[in-house]
Amino acid sequence: MPAGHAPAPAAGSGATFTDAERSAMELALAEAGRGVRGANPLVGAVVLGPDGTVRAVGHHRGAGTPHAEAAALDALGPVDPAEAALLTMAVTLEPCNHTGRTGPCAGAIAAAGIGRVVYATADGTDRAGGGAEFLAARGTEVASGLLGERARELNHRWFAARAAQRPFTTLHLAQTLDGRIAAADGTSQWITGPAARDHSHGVRARADAILAGTGTVLADNPRLTARNADGTAAARQPRRVVMGRREVPADAAVRGDGNWTQLATHDPSEALAALAADGTDHVMIEGGAAIATAFLAADLVDEVWLYQAPLFLGAGRPAVGDLGIGTLADARRWRLDDAGGPAHQRLGDDVALHLEPAPAPAHNAPTRAEERN
Amino acid sequence: MPAGHAPAPAAGSGATFTDAERSAMELALAEAGRGVRGANPLVGAVVLGPDGTVRAVGHHRGAGTPHAEAAALDALGPVDPAEAALLTMAVTLEPCNHTGRTGPCAGAIAAAGIGRVVYATADGTDRAGGGAEFLAARGTEVASGLLGERARELNHRWFAARAAQRPFTTLHLAQTLDGRIAAADGTSQWITGPAARDHSHGVRARADAILAGTGTVLADNPRLTARNADGTAAARQPRRVVMGRREVPADAAVRGDGNWTQLATHDPSEALAALAADGTDHVMIEGGAAIATAFLAADLVDEVWLYQAPLFLGAGRPAVGDLGIGTLADARRWRLDDAGGPAHQRLGDDVALHLEPAPAPAHNAPTRAEERN
Repeated sequence: MPAGHAPAPAAGSGATFTDAERSAMELALAEAGRGVRGANPLVGAVVLGPDGTVRAVGHHRGAGTPHAEAAALDALGPVDPAEAALLTMAVTLEPCNHTGRTGPCAGAIAAAGIGRVVYATADGTDRAGGGAEFLAARGTEVASGLLGERARELNHRWFAARAAQRPFTTLHLAQTLDGRIAAADGTSQWITGPAARDHSHGVRARADAILAGTGTVLADNPRLTARNADGTAAARQPRRVVMGRREVPADAAVRGDGNWTQLATHDPSEALAALAADGTDHVMIEGGAAIATAFLAADLVDEVWLYQAPLFLGAGRPAVGDLGIGTLADARRWRLDDAGGPAHQRLGDDVALHLEPAPAPAHNAPTRAEERN
Repeated sequence: MPAGHAPAPAAGSGATFTDAERSAMELALAEAGRGVRGANPLVGAVVLGPDGTVRAVGHHRGAGTPHAEAAALDALGPVDPAEAALLTMAVTLEPCNHTGRTGPCAGAIAAAGIGRVVYATADGTDRAGGGAEFLAARGTEVASGLLGERARELNHRWFAARAAQRPFTTLHLAQTLDGRIAAADGTSQWITGPAARDHSHGVRARADAILAGTGTVLADNPRLTARNADGTAAARQPRRVVMGRREVPADAAVRGDGNWTQLATHDPSEALAALAADGTDHVMIEGGAAIATAFLAADLVDEVWLYQAPLFLGAGRPAVGDLGIGTLADARRWRLDDAGGPAHQRLGDDVALHLEPAPAPAHNAPTRAEERN
């Protein structure tokens, strides 16, 4: 292998990378983690100068906002073609080659004249892939695979959702410290406080759809809209989806402006397939317990925002029902997730935890000998 | 009221205080919060120079360590008598006048020649009180009541425990996100990981006694010792207490070195009375669920360390059983407590929450109009 910091020309699995590119990809991964999970994967991008210094960074802030590459190019500002040809962009995901809500990144990178692109892992979706080929055809040097495993792990559930052709799912749980969502007599308003509710409305506003069961609709008559702290409607409203076979009353609040639908099924997979067919890329599962339990039991929850109010009820409705887990070793492990905000944070009197399924069983192997308590 | 910053001479409820003294007491309260809850109250102390600058701070780090006043005097270092006479100490609790594990603070302050002492609230316990009187008799200017309400609130459960002549209690709970301590088949090792277990052993090592039910002893055969991360015994070992009427087997691990006792009762008040009679000032309630539930239902838990492992079980034994709460409004509210470490923190894969009972029902009144979800 040649010494020095000159970029290796080869693309693909045989590619080699400079130390500066490796550091840049580390930074790009950290940048990616500043984004929010949902319809799109977490992506970060870093522009390096020929001397290996960081010239610009960017990350994707969620569906409808610029992709990481565009954000980094925007932060870089105008550069003349001779200078651009000496720049390298490190990006955690293959630049896209399609026009969605935003323009194709591969085209933007080529137009900016960036000389070399290093990406961690392929996008792998039919509709977004092909960016590397596009860039190479236009004379951009392209290399892939740098920290690819970490980039795939960062979005492991997003990749899994896309592979299954289903929306990415966010489960909302608001409960007591002992996992209750209502007291013995059914009273439940309010377990969590205004700050936690405001936070969950922010998550709602990012989703394409919000899903609740017919039981919740009949019991609580929720509007299922995304609202600002002052009670006004958020600019972006998810489609409201009611899951279940019971009839939704004519005067139900969820009917509202008509931007709603009912899915007459109790099967989470069927519900997600129907939503995918409608073009839904991100659904927030609002509840209640039967819905949350069904999605968890089917391993169809990609992230959880868990709001915990500081009290114990000791009785009343549990947030999560029987998952079919008989023994501890069979339970799926989750892990704290700092994407989109701290994985644990205080919200008013409450605590919010953000979690995603742990990627692999091996991740949680015992780290020291068992001992008696 | 006279203008300027000259200290007011009067003590007691009619006392007035300078702005510098008020700021010093704010700082002393913050310092107090760095300590750990347990046998002793949280106390902070600040030494002010005649120009109102902070010369030294100190806080009490837990039973067996120097009191806040001694820590502040130690931080101050030697001063000559003429200088000491111009200094003011602000302390959150009336300086003690008794020799416990450490010497009396009132005597130390007088010996140091501090000219003026301002304290927030009286100690109120027979064995520690009398410090103000002692100091005044030796010519120290003494004033009390500055931020007294906040100082009382900081230790409201400690004062309540002392008033009831019972030990301060710390409840340990280690559970899943849905409040389970065992899966359906009873498997429970390990729900939380090594970092959480190490943390709880640190709490054990601060307690005078550790209490578990006969059910836990018979099921898990725990040692109930405090151990370091490497498995060796901690320097300070709590007395091991088994609560309940079932016989503890002759070969039970809890019998260990003989530093244990059995309390043949199911009544938390009776158990605490027996422990108080034995000189126990701080007991850690280890479990299991029946014991935790009994103490919570009786409002005899002064703080909770809640360790949450990132998984859902959906079934299995709940950490907390029926508390006799029928409706949400009847549930006691708790609050996050930063004393002794962050109120919420990551420990390995787990999250630890530290909570204390909220001081007053009015604290949690609704802050905005109720609305539909």
